[in-house]
Amino acid sequence: MTYDLWYWDGIPGRGEFVRLALEAGGIRYRDRARESEEALMADLGRERERPPFAPPYLVAGDLVIGQTANILLFLGERHGLAPEDQAGRLWVNQLQLTIMDLVAEAHDVHHPVAVERYYEDQKGPALLRARSFREHRMPKFLGWFERVLEWQGRWLAGGGRWSYADLSLFQVVEGLRFAFPRRMATLEPKLGRVVALHEAVASLNALREYLSSDRRLPFGDGIFRHYPELDGD
Amino acid sequence: MTYDLWYWDGIPGRGEFVRLALEAGGIRYRDRARESEEALMADLGRERERPPFAPPYLVAGDLVIGQTANILLFLGERHGLAPEDQAGRLWVNQLQLTIMDLVAEAHDVHHPVAVERYYEDQKGPALLRARSFREHRMPKFLGWFERVLEWQGRWLAGGGRWSYADLSLFQVVEGLRFAFPRRMATLEPKLGRVVALHEAVASLNALREYLSSDRRLPFGDGIFRHYPELDGD
Repeated sequence: MTYDLWYWDGIPGRGEFVRLALEAGGIRYRDRARESEEALMADLGRERERPPFAPPYLVAGDLVIGQTANILLFLGERHGLAPEDQAGRLWVNQLQLTIMDLVAEAHDVHHPVAVERYYEDQKGPALLRARSFREHRMPKFLGWFERVLEWQGRWLAGGGRWSYADLSLFQVVEGLRFAFPRRMATLEPKLGRVVALHEAVASLNALREYLSSDRRLPFGDGIFRHYPELDGD
Repeated sequence: MTYDLWYWDGIPGRGEFVRLALEAGGIRYRDRARESEEALMADLGRERERPPFAPPYLVAGDLVIGQTANILLFLGERHGLAPEDQAGRLWVNQLQLTIMDLVAEAHDVHHPVAVERYYEDQKGPALLRARSFREHRMPKFLGWFERVLEWQGRWLAGGGRWSYADLSLFQVVEGLRFAFPRRMATLEPKLGRVVALHEAVASLNALREYLSSDRRLPFGDGIFRHYPELDGD
């Protein structure tokens, strides 16, 4: 079966976490909204018994699956991108949900008061939120992943094989380096295992071609944004 | 097996979504942090191979399960609090993740720039965020649940039986009524199905005793807070 992935064109956003799993898993898919933006608006307008709240969503035959972590849970089970035992499956889901919390907070740094308005209209609060994110939230989240890897080894779910959560953590490191290069330069010396995981994902055979292709989108004005005034040591 | 639920004492918070599922499912549990606050700090400090990032977490024998939606996924499968087929299971997880997004946004209304600081230190940005939340986010989320119920019937996953997502939506309505009574009074006439679901959950036999017991905590200074200046028609 060829899956249909639906996500806003032009930014990697939350769609990228799904795309990385599809690419690394060698799973066939069509990136539908990149073929035509109107197609996404039309598809979102369709009457569905179980409608997605927002992109990304994945159409797999009769199944329409929304919410990034939920799509990954499905792909993980179906295509062996996570451990098969219950404990391992729940653990990878827990890791992914924690990553999604971090992603939401990274977004809210530049949109702390109104998602529907421009960054320039909320720059004052953004400066405050960025400071809290850099000083408190980044060390807390990244430090937790570092501790997890102390226990687990090279990959977040141990066992000598990557899971979809490893791919997502790779993407988070990419995004944070793009958005907060100075802060990451300060933090990374204490995050040796997270940095090593990032490198290990970047050099996976199954991803190397994808990462240098034009299917891989630059960050641009998406969830991770680089505003120098929001960065700091 | 008796589960151990760990969550901060004194507020319902995210722990309440788990508690409602345990209570409605007639599942035996100990509310560990309500027995002793020091016990929670000690338990959080334990070295664990798969540590939770934050409360709530559920200890089920050898399993330590973090992230609210993940705990509910586990309880749903184990205790029949969600459909058993894959499509239904993923749908309820998707509903729950959307509820958790709404809960995170409801929290950020009063803490838009720094979770570690007092509301009083971020009241200006909070007024802006509250306006966006009331005008854009509340109608968008609640309207989506209303549309879902138009298709599904009385319960979010159809099929004549409540799932854990229904219990969570009940709690969200409770929380929003507490935090934004004026706004909810304006919105509710257009949310007949959501309001009916709230009433249906409140009158479940399995919950009635719980909801009037002292195990059920008042909202207080938790995720849902009532600051009159953040409310509005």
